[in-house]
Amino acid sequence: MHAYRTHNCAALRQSDVGETVRLSGWVHNKRDHGGVLFVDLRDHYGITQVVADSDSEALPLLEKIRLESVITIDGVVKARDGAAVNANLPTGEIEVFARSVEVQSRAEDLPLIVNSAEDYPEEVRLKYRFVDLRRERVHANIMLRNRVITSLRNRMIEQGFSEFQTPILGASSPEGARDYLVPSRLHPGRFYALPQAPQMFKQLLMVAGFDRYFQIAPCFRDEDLRADRSPEFYQLDFEMSFVTQEDVFQAIEPVLAGVFAEFANGKSVTSAGEFPRIPYREAMLKYGSDKPDLRNPLIISDVTDHFETSGFGLFEKIVGGGGRVRVVPAPNTQDKSRKFFDDMNDWARKEGFAGLGYVTRKGGEFGGPIAKNHGTEGMEQLYAELGLGENDGLFFAAGKEKDAAKLAGAARTRVAEELDLIEKDCFKFCWIVDFPMFEWDEDLKKVDFSHNPFSMPQGEMEALESKDPLDILAWQYDIVCNGYELSSGAIRNHKPEIMYKAFEIAGYSQEEVDANFSGMIEAFKLGAPPHGGSAPGIDRIVMLLADEPNIREVIAFPLNQRAQDLMMGAPSVVDAKQLRDVHIQLSPKAREAVEQASGAETADMNSHAAARDQSPEGGEG
Amino acid sequence: MHAYRTHNCAALRQSDVGETVRLSGWVHNKRDHGGVLFVDLRDHYGITQVVADSDSEALPLLEKIRLESVITIDGVVKARDGAAVNANLPTGEIEVFARSVEVQSRAEDLPLIVNSAEDYPEEVRLKYRFVDLRRERVHANIMLRNRVITSLRNRMIEQGFSEFQTPILGASSPEGARDYLVPSRLHPGRFYALPQAPQMFKQLLMVAGFDRYFQIAPCFRDEDLRADRSPEFYQLDFEMSFVTQEDVFQAIEPVLAGVFAEFANGKSVTSAGEFPRIPYREAMLKYGSDKPDLRNPLIISDVTDHFETSGFGLFEKIVGGGGRVRVVPAPNTQDKSRKFFDDMNDWARKEGFAGLGYVTRKGGEFGGPIAKNHGTEGMEQLYAELGLGENDGLFFAAGKEKDAAKLAGAARTRVAEELDLIEKDCFKFCWIVDFPMFEWDEDLKKVDFSHNPFSMPQGEMEALESKDPLDILAWQYDIVCNGYELSSGAIRNHKPEIMYKAFEIAGYSQEEVDANFSGMIEAFKLGAPPHGGSAPGIDRIVMLLADEPNIREVIAFPLNQRAQDLMMGAPSVVDAKQLRDVHIQLSPKAREAVEQASGAETADMNSHAAARDQSPEGGEG
Repeated sequence: MHAYRTHNCAALRQSDVGETVRLSGWVHNKRDHGGVLFVDLRDHYGITQVVADSDSEALPLLEKIRLESVITIDGVVKARDGAAVNANLPTGEIEVFARSVEVQSRAEDLPLIVNSAEDYPEEVRLKYRFVDLRRERVHANIMLRNRVITSLRNRMIEQGFSEFQTPILGASSPEGARDYLVPSRLHPGRFYALPQAPQMFKQLLMVAGFDRYFQIAPCFRDEDLRADRSPEFYQLDFEMSFVTQEDVFQAIEPVLAGVFAEFANGKSVTSAGEFPRIPYREAMLKYGSDKPDLRNPLIISDVTDHFETSGFGLFEKIVGGGGRVRVVPAPNTQDKSRKFFDDMNDWARKEGFAGLGYVTRKGGEFGGPIAKNHGTEGMEQLYAELGLGENDGLFFAAGKEKDAAKLAGAARTRVAEELDLIEKDCFKFCWIVDFPMFEWDEDLKKVDFSHNPFSMPQGEMEALESKDPLDILAWQYDIVCNGYELSSGAIRNHKPEIMYKAFEIAGYSQEEVDANFSGMIEAFKLGAPPHGGSAPGIDRIVMLLADEPNIREVIAFPLNQRAQDLMMGAPSVVDAKQLRDVHIQLSPKAREAVEQASGAETADMNSHAAARDQSPEGGEG
Repeated sequence: MHAYRTHNCAALRQSDVGETVRLSGWVHNKRDHGGVLFVDLRDHYGITQVVADSDSEALPLLEKIRLESVITIDGVVKARDGAAVNANLPTGEIEVFARSVEVQSRAEDLPLIVNSAEDYPEEVRLKYRFVDLRRERVHANIMLRNRVITSLRNRMIEQGFSEFQTPILGASSPEGARDYLVPSRLHPGRFYALPQAPQMFKQLLMVAGFDRYFQIAPCFRDEDLRADRSPEFYQLDFEMSFVTQEDVFQAIEPVLAGVFAEFANGKSVTSAGEFPRIPYREAMLKYGSDKPDLRNPLIISDVTDHFETSGFGLFEKIVGGGGRVRVVPAPNTQDKSRKFFDDMNDWARKEGFAGLGYVTRKGGEFGGPIAKNHGTEGMEQLYAELGLGENDGLFFAAGKEKDAAKLAGAARTRVAEELDLIEKDCFKFCWIVDFPMFEWDEDLKKVDFSHNPFSMPQGEMEALESKDPLDILAWQYDIVCNGYELSSGAIRNHKPEIMYKAFEIAGYSQEEVDANFSGMIEAFKLGAPPHGGSAPGIDRIVMLLADEPNIREVIAFPLNQRAQDLMMGAPSVVDAKQLRDVHIQLSPKAREAVEQASGAETADMNSHAAARDQSPEGGEG
């Protein structure tokens, strides 16, 4: 018989009744029914009920042992009485009568209770993460994460991609977010940086002739943290050669739709091939956002035309000044009080907007100041045009186009939430496409890149040479699911002459481009294929599937919101010799902080690594 | 028709003759046959021959275009004439007659030739890695690496393992190799460290109740570099709960044997279930190494007994002083000159040993000073016992046991190489088991741990309490293939009381253990399962399969031997602000080095990251 188990704790069934078995696991729960002791024995796979009475040698020990101790039970499988059958448990038809028990590990006082859903402060949970991870929900989240990533990998490989590892010890880049730095020992005064993304490397893999790259890539950004951010996160980084935007979509839609469908737990998912493609300008108009939540049925309309000569002075003034009026319908609000509408206005002000106007309509009767000033005829015309009914209210967002769009977008979400209109149990994907290549920079009074200077402009050189820059679109695209941006991506500009031209339009000379971007451009001068890709966030995908709002719920060992590992004690004070080795010193402020803390330091896991499995990357010769 | 290709460059066959196609790729080679131009068009998948003559619009452009430019060809598939068929090329039965050509990217002067196997300095290859990677051998190596890792993953999952990501921003540990440090911005004076291995985390995952963990884990060691070392390397890190050593072997042998068999390219591989298990002491005796190359048929024997009262004074003295005499046979050396044997002795001295004695035997006749002194009768007795024949020579390694074993081991390799006895075209695996738990520290005159203090001693507490410490073995094991250690591993000591006792034997008090290792021990006090694992080096596996002696040949973007990324310019000087942000300053020496270098700095890719695909780990809300 195996030293620890003949079966795992999810394996035994009615058909095993009578078998002599050995099980190992954690003491999940104990119930004493007057001389008969029931123990729920738990392992990774499940729970099996163990029973002991005065006939069992195991009883005295089981009575004494604390929850979360690890034990090995020898016993015999018995059928449960009809009433005792637990249909919720795969092993619910049987129990194991314990003949003997061996203690593998005796648990002392626990910092948190494993067999309850009770909430604990994150500090306790992260300091004792190895206990917290035993709890059902977080255990399930981490296993979901593992399965999602495996599924993503397999689906990428099915699509013809190969996985590459790109360097983690990389070069610091002046752009983007703040880098994590790593001082070099061999090169005094120089630093590596952890990658914010393997962008350069994946493009160079394409230049190197590898056709379809992907990587479940660890990325690092030293940014201030939020619930949905971690300093260390993973993205499904990918890049393809000889592709158009359409090819990228066709490659990745089956991967995303497939993995969501696999783990959606019955929720509906947009099918591959059916992800709507929404031009950026349309998204900003209809949803007031480039991350539209398509579960929300409300659509924003532009009604500026109606208010050019409206009786409503405020709107007339806004429109006269080049502003816009956008509306969000509030369907079937005939029973909503005036307070409902006024509260929306208050909310908008609290959010920093000028205010959210409204029209009520109850049984065809318009109400509210806008309707009054605009007149019934005008309102009816407007409603007819918008296809609204006689019990639909209407919210108005007016101002400069950007502001009006933003307010209308926020109001769209708010109204749909308040009216409970957001579709449940579904994942709705879309692509946002046709981002403008350039925009007018109001502060600098010049044309500048609007998103990514390295995307290929639609129409390439011809467009750059012949079109109004503000009309030029880029081959750039975002993947959005339920209002969350999973990633942006692009077809890259791989042609130096188009790169120079695009930068010229944004006011940069060829010399400036060469001085700042020569590396990539020089690579492109040695034979570069057309290429493009994207990089959906994996933590976000798992958060969506697990329905968790906090990224730390889907990471096995996350840093806390102060970027600390409370369990291992990172970051920590290190030896003076370690600093000398890499040619750095603490700043006076840091030195002071460390001196103040010393003495108050308590031992933590940090100082106590176990000797490691050696993988000598090449044998020790 | 697709913008870039209807087929890739490995796709077209005889059956496609007559088709109009579009191909894209790199101009791999050009041959001008007087008015008829042949172009080998290459992509990731293969090569297709393109032909153009004066009937083709494409001819003038193709004549001019440089190698490694990227082009798109429109043309028609033609059958090649019998004599022109290239059986070595999957597309060798056809060629594509070019009707027109579009240039996607014009290549300038190349730093290295792609279509040749010519050797270039590593500096050139790594600075232009994106060109180097197009060359057949390194392209194949990197794809092999990708496939090996995918296969390892799938095989681990088949064995019931799940893949977890453990933190890369971790805690510095005082043990082991030098850590790469990462200064913290939020915690002045404190540092993260990149993991040398995820040892603590994988053990904590077991304590957390996850049963079978694995990870293709990036690991980092700031060590001086060699051909077979990289600062950043990958291991197949795994850990299992409720297992004995035998369970670990049964889980991992199919993975390793399977992946080797899959990629061995016809070489034979030790079958799963048939990996020999060689106790450490036996390995040191029979192979003079704990990393025996089993392709070498030679076996070392201990012949100390024969020389207690031999007439050979040197050996008598060594044996009398507690030393050992070990022998390596040199079979069928009747035709080898005295020089062959003397050269071996010279070699041993050059390697720092006292010398390698020998006996020659030719047609039954013994030769050499040892034989002379030991006498023919004694020699015949020795040969009979060793089962040696009348044409077998014998090398002698004598000295303290450790030294004799080491010399014999080195001689075993050398003799087998010289006699060309090492079996070719095979991968021979074995486990080295039964490592001693403790050893006598000659310097400190005390018992100390011999390898890993955290392995479980065989016999657990009872052995610690009752046995001579030097007789206690550990549940520790190495995986060895063809003389290379792929990994060491162990069943862990998960019982605090046994940990305290083992440390007591090595001379450490419970207080010292608590002070240094409390983290792990405290975790083990909250319910820990028996567990064990290992971590085979992935780069080494790929090196063996690719038959490459240099680790940089199997990494897409390796650092050079000075730990520099010549392509991206890492490590690099960073902004003063970046240092201020993380509360560090350069040491005076580093400052000086940076000042000296400034001005001499040239632009490199480092300063020119392309804007990244955003995966906003949670949307920008």
